[in-house]
Amino acid sequence: MNIETCYSPALFDYYRNTQAVVVVVDILRATTSICTAFANGVRSIIPVESSEKAKELKGKGYPVAAERNGLVLDFADFGNSPFNFSPQNVAGRDIVYTTTNGTKTIHLASGCHAVVIASFSNNTAVAKWIIEKRRPVIILCAGWKNKYNIEDSLYAGCLSQALMKQGEYTTDCDSTVAAIDMWDNWKNQPRQIIEKSAQRWRLHKNNLDDCIDFCLKEDTMSVVPILKENHLVDALLL
Amino acid sequence: MNIETCYSPALFDYYRNTQAVVVVVDILRATTSICTAFANGVRSIIPVESSEKAKELKGKGYPVAAERNGLVLDFADFGNSPFNFSPQNVAGRDIVYTTTNGTKTIHLASGCHAVVIASFSNNTAVAKWIIEKRRPVIILCAGWKNKYNIEDSLYAGCLSQALMKQGEYTTDCDSTVAAIDMWDNWKNQPRQIIEKSAQRWRLHKNNLDDCIDFCLKEDTMSVVPILKENHLVDALLL
Repeated sequence: MNIETCYSPALFDYYRNTQAVVVVVDILRATTSICTAFANGVRSIIPVESSEKAKELKGKGYPVAAERNGLVLDFADFGNSPFNFSPQNVAGRDIVYTTTNGTKTIHLASGCHAVVIASFSNNTAVAKWIIEKRRPVIILCAGWKNKYNIEDSLYAGCLSQALMKQGEYTTDCDSTVAAIDMWDNWKNQPRQIIEKSAQRWRLHKNNLDDCIDFCLKEDTMSVVPILKENHLVDALLL
Repeated sequence: MNIETCYSPALFDYYRNTQAVVVVVDILRATTSICTAFANGVRSIIPVESSEKAKELKGKGYPVAAERNGLVLDFADFGNSPFNFSPQNVAGRDIVYTTTNGTKTIHLASGCHAVVIASFSNNTAVAKWIIEKRRPVIILCAGWKNKYNIEDSLYAGCLSQALMKQGEYTTDCDSTVAAIDMWDNWKNQPRQIIEKSAQRWRLHKNNLDDCIDFCLKEDTMSVVPILKENHLVDALLL
């Protein structure tokens, strides 16, 4: 089975395959934060595209995590750092979530066979779940405002390598080959290539870079968030 | 001054800057072939998007090079291999040219300050010309049917490094950083990463891979093809 990697939501039409499992990746920080929320006991997450929709749901009583360009929106209960998705904030609750890139990207893939949320933090759990599905895989990087970013590509390489190691997957996709090449070069020191990324400096400027090491750490959580009727739920609890 | 790299024509709207010099890259094979044509004395090249337009110009007496998916179109005088652009075929002539990815990409950039054609073969000449312009640079990779490809990205890294070495250019662009990283890893053995690329196997399947080493060789030509009123001409002869 084939792995493809789509570096930008704006390119997804060229990769779309309704038979595929689509893996949404937004390492700094949305998909890492979603995994953290499930590890901390959230019941479900409702990803919404617009801040207006998030505000509307806040009015209906939902706790809301909302961010644009790295900053917490004024009506939100909390923002986009994985540290915000603490057991106190999320355990047992249904949370509404909107971010600059990640939550839009989740909706883009919703017509495909399955949509799963991945990050370094749940890499092995997600790889195992995908392999059991026995379907083609599209790794969909959220990027930054439709541009390529390094951190999502780096993780695409990490996941692709994990899938290929099991022998069920190959790739004929240049983006996947390039992502694996980057991961191969930096896997022993991922922080060094992340230091060169634009998002690292955006977070630094807003004093939000305290979570980077956390976001780069592999296999700290055994959760597999999937999209089910507009909610994200943990597939391992179904 | 900043260097950005756009990995797909479909992403160009997110990078477009009318003040920038846009560098069009389609290493296997269109931009290498264009450089070869100028090195072999072509007077001008008219890049056209559609095969219909190429056919129409053929009717008006122009020699036509035309390819789709690697194969020469039936009405064309020759195809897309740099070896086709021999002195016998091109010297002193105005040639019409249409390809799967490259010629469309040239037109996409035509509203910007300048459009220049680059390949490994004219790297130093093109870098020198760009530096004299003192403008922001967008490296626009032709890719493959709007998807990322390895060979164009590899060259984007090569050119970026050449520009940055002169001290006038920096980058805040993740695609450029990733391209430089790839070039840094493979510059002593570029053929090894190209062996993993999809285009290498497409060319092989059609028995068209004899030109790959030629396309990867740096600085074999001192030409700088630029777009001027819908024609490509050599800026060094103006």
